[in-house]
Amino acid sequence: MDLNSDLGEGFGAWKMGDDDALLEIVSSANIACGFHAGDPGIMRRVTERAVERGVAIGAHVAYRDLAGFGRRAIDMAPDELSDEVLYQIGALDAFAKAAGGQVRYVKPHGALYNTAADDEEQAWAVLDGIRRYDPSLAILCPPDSEMSRQAENFGVRAYAEAFADRAYTAKGTLVSRKLPGAVLHDADAVATRAVEIAKTGKVIAADGRELTIPARSLCVHGDTPGAVELAHRIAKELVSAGVKIKSFVDADR
Amino acid sequence: MDLNSDLGEGFGAWKMGDDDALLEIVSSANIACGFHAGDPGIMRRVTERAVERGVAIGAHVAYRDLAGFGRRAIDMAPDELSDEVLYQIGALDAFAKAAGGQVRYVKPHGALYNTAADDEEQAWAVLDGIRRYDPSLAILCPPDSEMSRQAENFGVRAYAEAFADRAYTAKGTLVSRKLPGAVLHDADAVATRAVEIAKTGKVIAADGRELTIPARSLCVHGDTPGAVELAHRIAKELVSAGVKIKSFVDADR
Amino acid sequence: MDLNSDLGEGFGAWKMGDDDALLEIVSSANIACGFHAGDPGIMRRVTERAVERGVAIGAHVAYRDLAGFGRRAIDMAPDELSDEVLYQIGALDAFAKAAGGQVRYVKPHGALYNTAADDEEQAWAVLDGIRRYDPSLAILCPPDSEMSRQAENFGVRAYAEAFADRAYTAKGTLVSRKLPGAVLHDADAVATRAVEIAKTGKVIAADGRELTIPARSLCVHGDTPGAVELAHRIAKELVSAGVKIKSFVDADR
Amino acid sequence: MDLNSDLGEGFGAWKMGDDDALLEIVSSANIACGFHAGDPGIMRRVTERAVERGVAIGAHVAYRDLAGFGRRAIDMAPDELSDEVLYQIGALDAFAKAAGGQVRYVKPHGALYNTAADDEEQAWAVLDGIRRYDPSLAILCPPDSEMSRQAENFGVRAYAEAFADRAYTAKGTLVSRKLPGAVLHDADAVATRAVEIAKTGKVIAADGRELTIPARSLCVHGDTPGAVELAHRIAKELVSAGVKIKSFVDADR
Repeated sequence: MDLNSDLGEGFGAWKMGDDDALLEIVSSANIACGFHAGDPGIMRRVTERAVERGVAIGAHVAYRDLAGFGRRAIDMAPDELSDEVLYQIGALDAFAKAAGGQVRYVKPHGALYNTAADDEEQAWAVLDGIRRYDPSLAILCPPDSEMSRQAENFGVRAYAEAFADRAYTAKGTLVSRKLPGAVLHDADAVATRAVEIAKTGKVIAADGRELTIPARSLCVHGDTPGAVELAHRIAKELVSAGVKIKSFVDADR
Repeated sequence: MDLNSDLGEGFGAWKMGDDDALLEIVSSANIACGFHAGDPGIMRRVTERAVERGVAIGAHVAYRDLAGFGRRAIDMAPDELSDEVLYQIGALDAFAKAAGGQVRYVKPHGALYNTAADDEEQAWAVLDGIRRYDPSLAILCPPDSEMSRQAENFGVRAYAEAFADRAYTAKGTLVSRKLPGAVLHDADAVATRAVEIAKTGKVIAADGRELTIPARSLCVHGDTPGAVELAHRIAKELVSAGVKIKSFVDADR
Repeated sequence: MDLNSDLGEGFGAWKMGDDDALLEIVSSANIACGFHAGDPGIMRRVTERAVERGVAIGAHVAYRDLAGFGRRAIDMAPDELSDEVLYQIGALDAFAKAAGGQVRYVKPHGALYNTAADDEEQAWAVLDGIRRYDPSLAILCPPDSEMSRQAENFGVRAYAEAFADRAYTAKGTLVSRKLPGAVLHDADAVATRAVEIAKTGKVIAADGRELTIPARSLCVHGDTPGAVELAHRIAKELVSAGVKIKSFVDADR
Repeated sequence: MDLNSDLGEGFGAWKMGDDDALLEIVSSANIACGFHAGDPGIMRRVTERAVERGVAIGAHVAYRDLAGFGRRAIDMAPDELSDEVLYQIGALDAFAKAAGGQVRYVKPHGALYNTAADDEEQAWAVLDGIRRYDPSLAILCPPDSEMSRQAENFGVRAYAEAFADRAYTAKGTLVSRKLPGAVLHDADAVATRAVEIAKTGKVIAADGRELTIPARSLCVHGDTPGAVELAHRIAKELVSAGVKIKSFVDADR
């Protein structure tokens, strides 16, 4: 099982999250590429550290929206979006290669993640951008999404991720954050759930039904109080349960 | 002799210059990378056309300054500037490679060109960014500049460019645009000068003295009225004089 | 009848449209405020000229999207949008006042114009931003839109605009630009239509039915070849037909 | 004596400093206007709170440089800078007025503060922007600076500020942060110094000589660990010493 986290999300004088602490925990780093967060100096530091720690480098591509942190959908033409995805991957890969590594996968960020999960054209654009850069890159995305469905056409490997701290609907989608119980705050429950997903590929949905989640990665956060501790706890419980924490990028090779 | 021109300098809805016309004339395209001009859609179109036409692709790296078109010096720390140079080269190279080509050289733009010509730290930063991406890239810069002097230390080939439509001081620098006679407007004079530089490496300075200019490239413009015609005229006269128009990037290989 | 036009839509080194020519023709200037186009230097020049010419100054507020020229819908929270509208009006009014005038009305630009025409929350946000600045400002918007309907609640006067060069559906909305016949290219037809709207408030829809358009302003363009000539023609025909070209801002006072 | 602090310096999802805590302490708030930091939502919240607390609102104008937090000098033409200053004041004043207050003074930020302290043209530009908006605004700047010297010509009142936690040279300028002893870290020493400046207008320079500092305001910070506590301590000691903490904006009226 892979653990992934969003890293390098500061900008200029502004900090966000504890990149160094999370790089001790995760196996995959979704690194901001300058469109929703991240600047060249931050990209350099995070890629260098990721390479040193053997953490797989992913391009956390986003809509061009620093003011909104990439959390607002922008109604872009698919060909323009494909070009913006390509730009971001290329920019990050320059730092990855200068550090002795390389970008191995792409994970869309924020509003783009949500939009491309359902929208055929936006999903196409993300995958087209990836394919044009290098079809051997993987994509990290929700299970059963437009992105995962279209990936095969592009010759791109898709890996699904799950969230151990989020409630799921019976359909396998996340319960909206606006609803009560959407986020699990109990560390024990979250850690148990992480192990469950990793060992059985199953999780209990909000309505009590058992759900199959074919996740190859668990997303952990670093930008809220206690988040690093929770990530650490999840990692520890996984290891105790005999789960090896390892990026998906070399999994099928 | 190489002919180079600044291309891809529109942004979003805004146009600048006639990229297609110049790509019929020049052998090297300095393509904006999004920091002073250029956006991913433009970068795609210009790199594709450049590859089709066999024009060498250069990264026209700049200070991050869309509002000032990269024409204003920004007092940046050298390591930050190196990272910004690296970012821009990587982003452009993604498009170059997707189009079947690759970035072959770097030319700093505007204020960065001027600053790095004289300032040791800024020149270091440009070259450090190039070296970290790929030391086999060339740099296109003024003759006898900080950039050309430091290039050897970085293992980077430096090529000097000249301007056939500008007056030179006896020291080999350009006469300031604020002074009368700084820009030659007569097409015959400019074309004659271009041939002279190409054939003899010499030019008559503003004070009448003969000056040696070891230029491997002539810079032509496309963003003023009559500029494309002048570029075309220069190219034609060079060919008539037996000068082959050919990028410097393969010159010493 | 008022003639309005989008002005000041260059940015930095990039030009768009012929502001000076249009300021000789129109009675209302929708001036970009820096979010989709326009920079402080441009805002200064256009407001100064508008005041000199007695042209009413409108804030052409937009989504923050230079790369997309404000033509892409951004899914913003209403309170954030209200704040962005307030910011833009305040910035433009500083120039208007320094030039001896003041902002008199607001016209949303591009994607914001379209979104706020139908979307209740986005229309609320635009009007809330206006009200917080000065409820005596008018809003220029489509007839029968969410903006015009909500304006009364905010104590803001709404004025409808029409397009003499666009085909209308039987419902009074513009025929999509993607459909044939959406844009009228014949100058005679456009000028005739302009006079018809001004004199009778009626226009023939695409299906041949007569339609009532209670427009107080006609929008003319300046950024395409022949646009200034067409605007000039419209103005001339209106005057010949006895229509006084005059901003709506003082109309009901 | 006035206490001023830089506030509203977050941007989008990024936080900086503890605005609410400082608004309980200071009498003048230098509020970022969106060029180096600050966005419309933040500007709204900080101006509303400042008006509620009776804290004077100042426009913390800066170079357009989010990536560099306004800390890098940009070599701008004076007339462009004047326009950028005007733009920022107007934008902030929209929020101040919507909250029931108004901008009362201007303090340049970061690199602009340093540049305009010495450079005649940049100081001119800042003052010209202020004058065009409203010459009854004050400017908060270093004592004996280009800004304070030129202010009289513009009919603008200049007030000098001092730093209780910084060492001074015998000439009355700040000891460079690169030198040892430049920043005082001992809270007792800083508080004593604040009282000394407020009561006597004098301070002991780094070489032991007594120096006259005609400061009307002391700058306190909120963005480093312990900063709020130190600001609170300074305020408390001033009050204990019989100094009234009160903005300079109404001082001479």
